[in-house]
Amino acid sequence: MAKTILLINGPNLNLLEKLGLELHVFQSNWEGAIIDRIHQARGNCDFIIINPGGLTHTSVALRDSLLGVEIPFVEVHASNIHAREAFRHHSYLSDKAVGVICGLGVFGYTAAIDFVASKLGASQTGRTEG
Amino acid sequence: MAKTILLINGPNLNLLEKLGLELHVFQSNWEGAIIDRIHQARGNCDFIIINPGGLTHTSVALRDSLLGVEIPFVEVHASNIHAREAFRHHSYLSDKAVGVICGLGVFGYTAAIDFVASKLGASQTGRTEG
Amino acid sequence: MAKTILLINGPNLNLLEKLGLELHVFQSNWEGAIIDRIHQARGNCDFIIINPGGLTHTSVALRDSLLGVEIPFVEVHASNIHAREAFRHHSYLSDKAVGVICGLGVFGYTAAIDFVASKLGASQTGRTEG
Amino acid sequence: MAKTILLINGPNLNLLEKLGLELHVFQSNWEGAIIDRIHQARGNCDFIIINPGGLTHTSVALRDSLLGVEIPFVEVHASNIHAREAFRHHSYLSDKAVGVICGLGVFGYTAAIDFVASKLGASQTGRTEG
Amino acid sequence: MAKTILLINGPNLNLLEKLGLELHVFQSNWEGAIIDRIHQARGNCDFIIINPGGLTHTSVALRDSLLGVEIPFVEVHASNIHAREAFRHHSYLSDKAVGVICGLGVFGYTAAIDFVASKLGASQTGRTEG
Amino acid sequence: MAKTILLINGPNLNLLEKLGLELHVFQSNWEGAIIDRIHQARGNCDFIIINPGGLTHTSVALRDSLLGVEIPFVEVHASNIHAREAFRHHSYLSDKAVGVICGLGVFGYTAAIDFVASKLGASQTGRTEG
Amino acid sequence: MAKTILLINGPNLNLLEKLGLELHVFQSNWEGAIIDRIHQARGNCDFIIINPGGLTHTSVALRDSLLGVEIPFVEVHASNIHAREAFRHHSYLSDKAVGVICGLGVFGYTAAIDFVASKLGASQTGRTEG
Amino acid sequence: MAKTILLINGPNLNLLEKLGLELHVFQSNWEGAIIDRIHQARGNCDFIIINPGGLTHTSVALRDSLLGVEIPFVEVHASNIHAREAFRHHSYLSDKAVGVICGLGVFGYTAAIDFVASKLGASQTGRTEG
Amino acid sequence: MAKTILLINGPNLNLLEKLGLELHVFQSNWEGAIIDRIHQARGNCDFIIINPGGLTHTSVALRDSLLGVEIPFVEVHASNIHAREAFRHHSYLSDKAVGVICGLGVFGYTAAIDFVASKLGASQTGRTEG
Amino acid sequence: MAKTILLINGPNLNLLEKLGLELHVFQSNWEGAIIDRIHQARGNCDFIIINPGGLTHTSVALRDSLLGVEIPFVEVHASNIHAREAFRHHSYLSDKAVGVICGLGVFGYTAAIDFVASKLGASQTGRTEG
Amino acid sequence: MAKTILLINGPNLNLLEKLGLELHVFQSNWEGAIIDRIHQARGNCDFIIINPGGLTHTSVALRDSLLGVEIPFVEVHASNIHAREAFRHHSYLSDKAVGVICGLGVFGYTAAIDFVASKLGASQTGRTEG
Amino acid sequence: MAKTILLINGPNLNLLEKLGLELHVFQSNWEGAIIDRIHQARGNCDFIIINPGGLTHTSVALRDSLLGVEIPFVEVHASNIHAREAFRHHSYLSDKAVGVICGLGVFGYTAAIDFVASKLGASQTGRTEG
Repeated sequence: MAKTILLINGPNLNLLEKLGLELHVFQSNWEGAIIDRIHQARGNCDFIIINPGGLTHTSVALRDSLLGVEIPFVEVHASNIHAREAFRHHSYLSDKAVGVICGLGVFGYTAAIDFVASKLGASQTGRTEG
Repeated sequence: MAKTILLINGPNLNLLEKLGLELHVFQSNWEGAIIDRIHQARGNCDFIIINPGGLTHTSVALRDSLLGVEIPFVEVHASNIHAREAFRHHSYLSDKAVGVICGLGVFGYTAAIDFVASKLGASQTGRTEG
Repeated sequence: MAKTILLINGPNLNLLEKLGLELHVFQSNWEGAIIDRIHQARGNCDFIIINPGGLTHTSVALRDSLLGVEIPFVEVHASNIHAREAFRHHSYLSDKAVGVICGLGVFGYTAAIDFVASKLGASQTGRTEG
Repeated sequence: MAKTILLINGPNLNLLEKLGLELHVFQSNWEGAIIDRIHQARGNCDFIIINPGGLTHTSVALRDSLLGVEIPFVEVHASNIHAREAFRHHSYLSDKAVGVICGLGVFGYTAAIDFVASKLGASQTGRTEG
Repeated sequence: MAKTILLINGPNLNLLEKLGLELHVFQSNWEGAIIDRIHQARGNCDFIIINPGGLTHTSVALRDSLLGVEIPFVEVHASNIHAREAFRHHSYLSDKAVGVICGLGVFGYTAAIDFVASKLGASQTGRTEG
Repeated sequence: MAKTILLINGPNLNLLEKLGLELHVFQSNWEGAIIDRIHQARGNCDFIIINPGGLTHTSVALRDSLLGVEIPFVEVHASNIHAREAFRHHSYLSDKAVGVICGLGVFGYTAAIDFVASKLGASQTGRTEG
Repeated sequence: MAKTILLINGPNLNLLEKLGLELHVFQSNWEGAIIDRIHQARGNCDFIIINPGGLTHTSVALRDSLLGVEIPFVEVHASNIHAREAFRHHSYLSDKAVGVICGLGVFGYTAAIDFVASKLGASQTGRTEG
Repeated sequence: MAKTILLINGPNLNLLEKLGLELHVFQSNWEGAIIDRIHQARGNCDFIIINPGGLTHTSVALRDSLLGVEIPFVEVHASNIHAREAFRHHSYLSDKAVGVICGLGVFGYTAAIDFVASKLGASQTGRTEG
Repeated sequence: MAKTILLINGPNLNLLEKLGLELHVFQSNWEGAIIDRIHQARGNCDFIIINPGGLTHTSVALRDSLLGVEIPFVEVHASNIHAREAFRHHSYLSDKAVGVICGLGVFGYTAAIDFVASKLGASQTGRTEG
Repeated sequence: MAKTILLINGPNLNLLEKLGLELHVFQSNWEGAIIDRIHQARGNCDFIIINPGGLTHTSVALRDSLLGVEIPFVEVHASNIHAREAFRHHSYLSDKAVGVICGLGVFGYTAAIDFVASKLGASQTGRTEG
Repeated sequence: MAKTILLINGPNLNLLEKLGLELHVFQSNWEGAIIDRIHQARGNCDFIIINPGGLTHTSVALRDSLLGVEIPFVEVHASNIHAREAFRHHSYLSDKAVGVICGLGVFGYTAAIDFVASKLGASQTGRTEG
Repeated sequence: MAKTILLINGPNLNLLEKLGLELHVFQSNWEGAIIDRIHQARGNCDFIIINPGGLTHTSVALRDSLLGVEIPFVEVHASNIHAREAFRHHSYLSDKAVGVICGLGVFGYTAAIDFVASKLGASQTGRTEG
């Protein structure tokens, strides 16, 4: 059976142009909605790729949801967070992530998907969720 | 008239098995929903028991809602937060709580309810809210 | 054409008496709802006046939404946040605001509107949103 | 009898264009002179508006003089001190002020005077001191 | 055979009214005496309930004695230590305790005993030691 | 009736030459013994003068005992603790003391006794305890 | 020849009632004036007693002037600075003072003068300077 | 003309299996050798990919060499440095890098090369240096 | 026309032997006087050499005056401030200075004047001000 | 005459197997008892070897007793305190010790005794004290 | 077969008199050379004794090399680093060492060798390397 | 005999144009090479002028080498390190230097040489080393 990847974009990432990916893609400005979506992934998702936006630096609840469902994840940031404000240098997710990619723009998503695919040895099909 | 207790569980606590309590029980992964629920309790609730999950360490808005409605509350954590990551050692609620219980698992809820009952000298009846 | 001002009140500010202003007024206890509302303002709003309540001190996502829509804003607090708990002395918005007013109570909103009006040289008409 | 407001400008604010206010206005680059002036206000002044310039961040003696005469005061900064160097983010006056206004330029003085007037319900007449 | 619980009260807790508990109860103002008492418990005690008073925040030797005898313990504080001075927010015991209860007054001891009893499935008999 | 003053010297102060005072004088190297002595003073002592030695910087239990008996006290150090190691610059007693004297050598005790006498308007008689 | 003591009071201490001392007494709200006065004392003063007011916590120049003239000094505070705001717990003078007295009110000056007199073995005559 | 990429591995990375890349590959345990190699790249290299090993957290000289030659670079770590000791969470290079990849193992090098290639629109040929 | 250099010495530097320089030399123990002098230099001075004495570490107002007049300056300290107390390691002027010289004694002034002269390509004449 | 070494073990070290040394060996769980024992050593002991247990990190009084008797000492820890909790990385004794040994288990005592013997050029005889 | 010990001395330790040990002794002022030497020890060395000199406090690469070769090591410092500058109190090696010895001078090497010998139960032969 | 000055430039300073000085000039990107060079200077050099480049902020070994050879030195930086990144504000050399010059560009070397010459009363001859 095909492996499943869930790609999550956090608050304000809808302001950017949507990515043309064929995966389960979910974007929300609401922390609660993202947590609910992660809970739904339990049992039917093999890997999560997440760009948590501003929640990266503030949400312990998001961290808890990822730990609770026990799905491995890669953290992606389009910009280089180390070249921005000091409060963006800490992430509540990074120490629990498999890996972190930042500063490579849209290519960062591509790299994350390729990495996950190589891990899973699987073909991907996608769907964009509200 | 019977005294009323509101029991609130914060984000990700739905992942655990539901408690068999007959009280007003409310769980949500959404900070805004919890704040709205606390506002509704003003004038018709005598005590709040709250396990704020990951919001414990990050939500000033939750603190403000509890202070705004002026209902005394007990803070409960099933796990021992002092034995976990350093960022879990600080709570935005504890200095305003009547008391704090952690590490006693489900028994912590029992102890909190018994404590509140002894304070209120009241019988409890319960209802589980969505 | 008339200039437009959006006035936003964050979590728990519904507990206070509503202001009698004739402007686009929006209040929510939900961070996500406030961010969505700010996104809607892009292209049809000239200035934002915001009292972020407890989100002032915790929400990087709120900061990102204001930066994302590139609308200038004034930050208002009814109370003097410098005379309260230490964690209220830092704001995630202030360094990006045009200005900050605190401790002047309801007059603070009046001053902010007058300031914005003098900047925009515009008449205001208002509407209160859910 | 008419209420009296004292408007004080601290070091280096003489470099800016003088404000055309008709109030008791005092400017000095000398901390001691400002403290002496505040002492003189005891018993014949109802409110102080003060822009302490660089003394904001360094002068406990200035704080003590304001506390000693027990006259309420509003703190004004023409620039947004939160958008400047980190050492400008702390003020020795703010936690004792009625309120704080920053970043609104000359309008900040206007707003402060309007606020004080609304508090005192009084007409103002002014004089500019050396 | 009946399970045994040791209840220890640290410095200055003799100033409060003595608890009417029928358990092995020990109080001392002397750190060394408390450590000796804990050593004696090795091999003949199943659980320790301890209110370490001011030693909570300063005694590594007390921590070492509890770790040395390898008896599980619950930490109890009658007052809410999170609502007091900052130096009372850290405990040298909490990260090694099974759980922590504070702010519930004398009820805190009751809750601790009930919790331990439920863990041990045992009847208690008590004796108050000098 | 004559007012009573208790003069306490903490650990290692027996190494210095004993003071020739005619007051209730108590010295011990044992924290527990000092706390017991303070407890005994409740109800029969009007003022405590204390040089806590090294316990100054480490003993919350000593602080608690002084607060528990509710007897006003003056803190004395023969040496100037501000001119010694950094860890000696903080005292667990000073913020609860009536006053603090340091660096005046044996004269510090004289000044403390004179100050207490002027407060109590009383003659002193003394006794040196083991 | 009679020994000379210089008693200095820093900013805002003129707000208190003047002390009836017959010593060289100097008070100023101006840091520069105090430094000039200390410089004048070089060669004709044996001891300085200083209550630096708010300059205690902010003035390195005052520290330098006392070190420059090489006159021993005692630091006096009428209030207990350890029981006030945190920024009053550090003094730029204390580590260079012979001793420090705080919290004893006007008696603190008396004790300081007695201490200095005992050191100098000298009679005092006084004069109050502008 | 073909674009050139320089791939640098810092101290201890020779302990791992060598990568089978056909690029200019350089590894050294000597900070000075790496700096010399970077200097040589000036004028004949379009992009650097660097895994600085332990120098990541300690070498300002390495940072200076990369800034000095003004060649854009991507920082790669095979392991997830955010899940290791706290001192590995800070890098002296990240804020000057185009992007950072960590935790993806050998795939991280592949992703970095792909990213650089997409930036340069260039074919690569490689050579392994001593 | 000849270029003009202003040389300023801050508090307590009059205690040292006066320098035999033929430049505009100004010394004062009063922060306000130094700020006034710097204001006067606006429009008729090309470079300032300043040894701020103890104000180096405490005066934001001095920093503001130098920034306000927009005259480039070199900071000089006769002693090596890095070998003295920790609070002397930070200067409120250094990050805005062209350069900083310390520890070279009187030679530091000579070097500063030579540097400024080489910058200005100008002859100097001097005058010592009160 | 034979040189004398005093070997002290602090709190909880009686839980370990006693060492078979023929020296003056003293163990106590009571800080006061250890301080008294050190005082007794004044004038009849040439070197102290001390394993202070948990008091290492908390007891200024112990430090003061060792400094008071002016006997050189070596600090020994059986375990490697640098590989344990962060609060064990600081010792109140180390900066005053001749040397420190940790992590070598019982061999650490042997090494300390050999070192002291080589310093004293003396034979040892021992006695184990209560 | 004889067990092998490698003794390494870091930068500047050649300034001291060479030790007369018959072991594999290596000294270098070059971090890279020391790391290379440690790599060579993999597979033919049973224990390392290392005095890293100034690299103790700055070299993560050195730490990584010791962890990479998985050879147990003892850290030795001739001086008592706890009695020197604050930056010498932290070591990048200590938490990974078997044990640490400091302040015993040349005897520290002897103790380390004896300890390792007792661990290995082996005879040593030595050679001094460049 | 002519006095000798050694001028050292640390890592990356070869990127700048070489200075035309006739002194013993040494530049290296290798910390070990610089330390070796400083060791060679023992006994045949009277003063060192050093620009340590990025090693300024990271190398304790470099500090130790300068202290070990006991040759006085002046620290020079061409740029104003106080106007750059925060980690450049601390130097491991400054508190041991005779003096520090920064921000004066190439003139800083000239001033340092003039200063040393005036100290040594000596003529200089130079040679540029590899």
